[in-house]
Amino acid sequence: MTQTPVRFGLIGTGRIGQVHAASIAAAPDATLAWVADPFIDGANAVAAKFGGTATASAEELISAGAKGEIDAVLIASPTPTHVDLIEASVRAGLPVLCEKPIDLAIARVDALRPLIAESGIPVALGFNRRFDPDFKSARARVAAGEIGDPEQLIIISRDPAAPPADYIKVSGGIFRDMTIHDFDMARFFVDDIVEVHATGTRAFDPGAREHGDFDTAVTTLRASSGAVVTIINSRHSAIGYDQRIEAFGGRGMLQVANAPTSLVSLSTAEAVEAKPAYGEFFLERYAEAYSAELGEFIKLVRGEASTSPTFEDGRAALILADAAQRSATEGVAVAVDLGA
Amino acid sequence: MTQTPVRFGLIGTGRIGQVHAASIAAAPDATLAWVADPFIDGANAVAAKFGGTATASAEELISAGAKGEIDAVLIASPTPTHVDLIEASVRAGLPVLCEKPIDLAIARVDALRPLIAESGIPVALGFNRRFDPDFKSARARVAAGEIGDPEQLIIISRDPAAPPADYIKVSGGIFRDMTIHDFDMARFFVDDIVEVHATGTRAFDPGAREHGDFDTAVTTLRASSGAVVTIINSRHSAIGYDQRIEAFGGRGMLQVANAPTSLVSLSTAEAVEAKPAYGEFFLERYAEAYSAELGEFIKLVRGEASTSPTFEDGRAALILADAAQRSATEGVAVAVDLGA
Amino acid sequence: MTQTPVRFGLIGTGRIGQVHAASIAAAPDATLAWVADPFIDGANAVAAKFGGTATASAEELISAGAKGEIDAVLIASPTPTHVDLIEASVRAGLPVLCEKPIDLAIARVDALRPLIAESGIPVALGFNRRFDPDFKSARARVAAGEIGDPEQLIIISRDPAAPPADYIKVSGGIFRDMTIHDFDMARFFVDDIVEVHATGTRAFDPGAREHGDFDTAVTTLRASSGAVVTIINSRHSAIGYDQRIEAFGGRGMLQVANAPTSLVSLSTAEAVEAKPAYGEFFLERYAEAYSAELGEFIKLVRGEASTSPTFEDGRAALILADAAQRSATEGVAVAVDLGA
Amino acid sequence: MTQTPVRFGLIGTGRIGQVHAASIAAAPDATLAWVADPFIDGANAVAAKFGGTATASAEELISAGAKGEIDAVLIASPTPTHVDLIEASVRAGLPVLCEKPIDLAIARVDALRPLIAESGIPVALGFNRRFDPDFKSARARVAAGEIGDPEQLIIISRDPAAPPADYIKVSGGIFRDMTIHDFDMARFFVDDIVEVHATGTRAFDPGAREHGDFDTAVTTLRASSGAVVTIINSRHSAIGYDQRIEAFGGRGMLQVANAPTSLVSLSTAEAVEAKPAYGEFFLERYAEAYSAELGEFIKLVRGEASTSPTFEDGRAALILADAAQRSATEGVAVAVDLGA
Repeated sequence: MTQTPVRFGLIGTGRIGQVHAASIAAAPDATLAWVADPFIDGANAVAAKFGGTATASAEELISAGAKGEIDAVLIASPTPTHVDLIEASVRAGLPVLCEKPIDLAIARVDALRPLIAESGIPVALGFNRRFDPDFKSARARVAAGEIGDPEQLIIISRDPAAPPADYIKVSGGIFRDMTIHDFDMARFFVDDIVEVHATGTRAFDPGAREHGDFDTAVTTLRASSGAVVTIINSRHSAIGYDQRIEAFGGRGMLQVANAPTSLVSLSTAEAVEAKPAYGEFFLERYAEAYSAELGEFIKLVRGEASTSPTFEDGRAALILADAAQRSATEGVAVAVDLGA
Repeated sequence: MTQTPVRFGLIGTGRIGQVHAASIAAAPDATLAWVADPFIDGANAVAAKFGGTATASAEELISAGAKGEIDAVLIASPTPTHVDLIEASVRAGLPVLCEKPIDLAIARVDALRPLIAESGIPVALGFNRRFDPDFKSARARVAAGEIGDPEQLIIISRDPAAPPADYIKVSGGIFRDMTIHDFDMARFFVDDIVEVHATGTRAFDPGAREHGDFDTAVTTLRASSGAVVTIINSRHSAIGYDQRIEAFGGRGMLQVANAPTSLVSLSTAEAVEAKPAYGEFFLERYAEAYSAELGEFIKLVRGEASTSPTFEDGRAALILADAAQRSATEGVAVAVDLGA
Repeated sequence: MTQTPVRFGLIGTGRIGQVHAASIAAAPDATLAWVADPFIDGANAVAAKFGGTATASAEELISAGAKGEIDAVLIASPTPTHVDLIEASVRAGLPVLCEKPIDLAIARVDALRPLIAESGIPVALGFNRRFDPDFKSARARVAAGEIGDPEQLIIISRDPAAPPADYIKVSGGIFRDMTIHDFDMARFFVDDIVEVHATGTRAFDPGAREHGDFDTAVTTLRASSGAVVTIINSRHSAIGYDQRIEAFGGRGMLQVANAPTSLVSLSTAEAVEAKPAYGEFFLERYAEAYSAELGEFIKLVRGEASTSPTFEDGRAALILADAAQRSATEGVAVAVDLGA
Repeated sequence: MTQTPVRFGLIGTGRIGQVHAASIAAAPDATLAWVADPFIDGANAVAAKFGGTATASAEELISAGAKGEIDAVLIASPTPTHVDLIEASVRAGLPVLCEKPIDLAIARVDALRPLIAESGIPVALGFNRRFDPDFKSARARVAAGEIGDPEQLIIISRDPAAPPADYIKVSGGIFRDMTIHDFDMARFFVDDIVEVHATGTRAFDPGAREHGDFDTAVTTLRASSGAVVTIINSRHSAIGYDQRIEAFGGRGMLQVANAPTSLVSLSTAEAVEAKPAYGEFFLERYAEAYSAELGEFIKLVRGEASTSPTFEDGRAALILADAAQRSATEGVAVAVDLGA
């Protein structure tokens, strides 16, 4: 690559912001130019470790971008800030990679939509799972016809442990906070979803009960082709992070298993072929995906062909989440128009 | 066993009737005394092979029972005959093992209900899967607390190939005809179901399209405990009969895999650990279960403790099927009261 | 089958004799005509359950055969009686199915050989594993070229628990008593064995130590083609009866796994995909094989094409066992001429 | 880590030398100070990419070390140079990590032995597989008693494709070139080996035939405890690099499976659960192990507790290789004294 590295401005230095900072630092064609976080200690620590100028002000970072000091903005700040930061970045002419979800309110997303469409500035969404090598491979093999026409997709997605009640309170609910990834994965495989059914319950988590959220959910998405997607969620999983997909079609099925943490199995009189439990959580499980996600976004910034999920993908996932929330609450199937 | 063998009257000598005839003949504590089928050649053939007196008239068989020539009636005739035959048998004081479903119309089932309750005559339903050693073991292990409190049950149930359009026409639809087994399996694991959501589509089968049925369905059952059951159905499966269960709880999960048809796997440069496809259909897959089902019913006939599913279990499954049909058609969640 | 059933004379009513009696009784084309055991209670019990005339005298049984009362002899008596009983049966013109090994002394086997060759009377050996559906399928697929030219065969064969020391004393040693089956399996896959290396140790069993036997053994067989067979034996296995095969060739490999005892697996925080231990022992593991073995022998009796292993196969396995014993004792590779 | 990074002198910049250069460059506590290769272009390329001063002369590198410019030598040059380079490094007071084998001639190894013992300079051998997380975990679990007393170890080790005939010619033969790794792995699990049996054949490779080598080998190692190790080797494997271990003991077994290249499996009417073939070769399979090997050597250089395999481990593996070569050639079991 004889191209100049893309200079990133990173907004937000929490857990996921640090992952992105490390990816940027490790990428041969990217550098970390600016780091913003109102919690200035966080910004300073990240800048010290991975490079760049630290600031407490995202506005200052975007201004630096407007002056030509950065080439792209990576938004990893709390959800309520996303819309304003995307808008400011786009107005400054800066391509954006924003963590999901765009916002918890579809109205705010829709309000931002025309600006993005008119600007022509690329805005990508951080649906990292699309870049997981196994999910990506499964999707490519479905597209190549290995299972015939796709008819059923089963996504099992269970987090290791329920988040704190305080987080539940502001999360927007399980569908907007957790299932949002699965909605995007559903659309990655099946692109003509027209109807949403969802069932949510409170089976174990006091936090979900306290804040009117669900800890257990099953969502069914109907596509115009007749294909049906089923998403099985739980906020906890004793066996570790549980992330599986089964794509079933007229000629067979493709299954993506959980990632083993070891190749060793134990057989005794009590049990045979017992393996260690699955790994902890998304940062480890999707480490490779985060790196690939960044690489694909860099192509987008450079105007090359790119498969980065877009603002429209982010909006579609939110529409599905809203529909699931309504379905689970009101007990009705909810029609959706994703305009695809 | 020094007890006298139970003398069976078998009504119906189609595919499933022949399975029962063979089970009766093979059981040390049962004999085939009478065989009835309006298609008299069928009755004669079964009687010639497995013993008993053949007749074209089910009434004659039940009369013989009333005279003390048989101890129990096994009904394996077409669904529309079930209610009348159960009624006649019960009025003759004969215990009944009836194939599922009791009837396609819940009204007819409800009309029969008081007679059975008052008579005290045992009426068992042929939900054979409860007697599959693996499903039975999984359920016992769930009950023993191996996964903690059950929170999610996933039942994947796909038939090898769609039935002929003529059969679809009279089948009562996928939920009453096929999912009925899965509804009973759901209740085998989770006993307090209060709500049903279902999505059905026509993804591939012209017969389903022609007769307004679905070939693909996903049903979600909500229990009052917060547990959720998901049933995934397809009328076809290129890989063979697909019958799996995953029970997920607070401490882990129990999975029942498909039955392998071979212990041999092939590894080449193209693919590793490839095994032959799954077996053909229910008669082979559940051969052991049919035999155990009969043994359990014999206990019931003898007044011993028995786990045979009852008329009430048959009615509950039909209520769930009706609710699923309505949910899939009208796009609403349907509350059910199974009176359990 | 319009043919008259083959009338069997069974000699020996111990554990394996009872298995054969049950197979004969269950086979549509066989009946049990005579049963002999010097332990007359055993003979009486088997005859009562499965039919036939009981006697304490094998000679009387063979005499009855000579008079036309039986069509074939099944020898399941202790090993030291095999040679004499085969000889008497052959002289009486009766086809024989004899349990393995023919004898512990190759000299006695060789002395019997000319009579059998000249008589033309079929003598089959009870190498039941050839009839196991999975081993048979693997061998057929190797023969069909699925792995290319066979280069390596690994046979893992471990019994659940060491036999009593008294049995070890008269067993002829691990190679003649236990590995004998694996030697036949080796020849089932690879037919030109020319050299034997063996290593035996006493790792755990006091009985083996007391009587100069081995409890642990590894045998390597070299074929003239360059293929190599490795047989791994142990007299005990905490996980249950361990019977696996891996056939490796130029294009890939075929593996035969242990037979699962359940389709249920448990996943918890401690371990995932844990399955119940393997089954107990050969009577259960090879039930289907014993039945197929009998069916194939019936063909042989009737002069039809048959794949029953022969007296020569029995002799070849014993030659390999002798060679292994010598190799393990003297620390040399031993050349063998199986005359194939 | 506030310690100064260890400055490495790397000798040899072929395939494995480049792996080590990359590991050194990536390690936080190591730097590449000098790079030597008589093929100066190779040395220059590595130095340009990973740092350090390039030279065509290993002597110059060691001299620089003697002057305090490097802290340790990593020898990745051709086998015939190892002994001289180790000697020179040790005389210069420099700790050494040397690729296996030390030499093809045990006499040269033995001649070097006293110097190393007297010098007290640490000399580590590059038996990278000890650092593979799964083999390491299996060994630790065996040591922790999970399988009871170890009785049998099976090592399956097959390379993807036979090397060129020219390489075979100078390789020292399959036992010294390829099995050498498995001999060390055997000793990693079982430490009291006293006897070696080996069988080698030429099943497919013209190069092996031309140069009197074997392409297929089975080696059996007997331990004084009664444990037996079986090593199965092939110079080719159509399914990819095949590296498995099974450790069997009185309480059960631990198995290390091949590393999957994908979590995706395909099921169709032709075959179910088919996965992509295994990966290419050792550089990919053991990438993590090479990095851990370096980390452990750095501890050794710093005088910290370290599990790096030593010169003595390298010598023991060569003794076993010599014994196997002799056993396979002469058809005798060969006693060994590893002096452990």
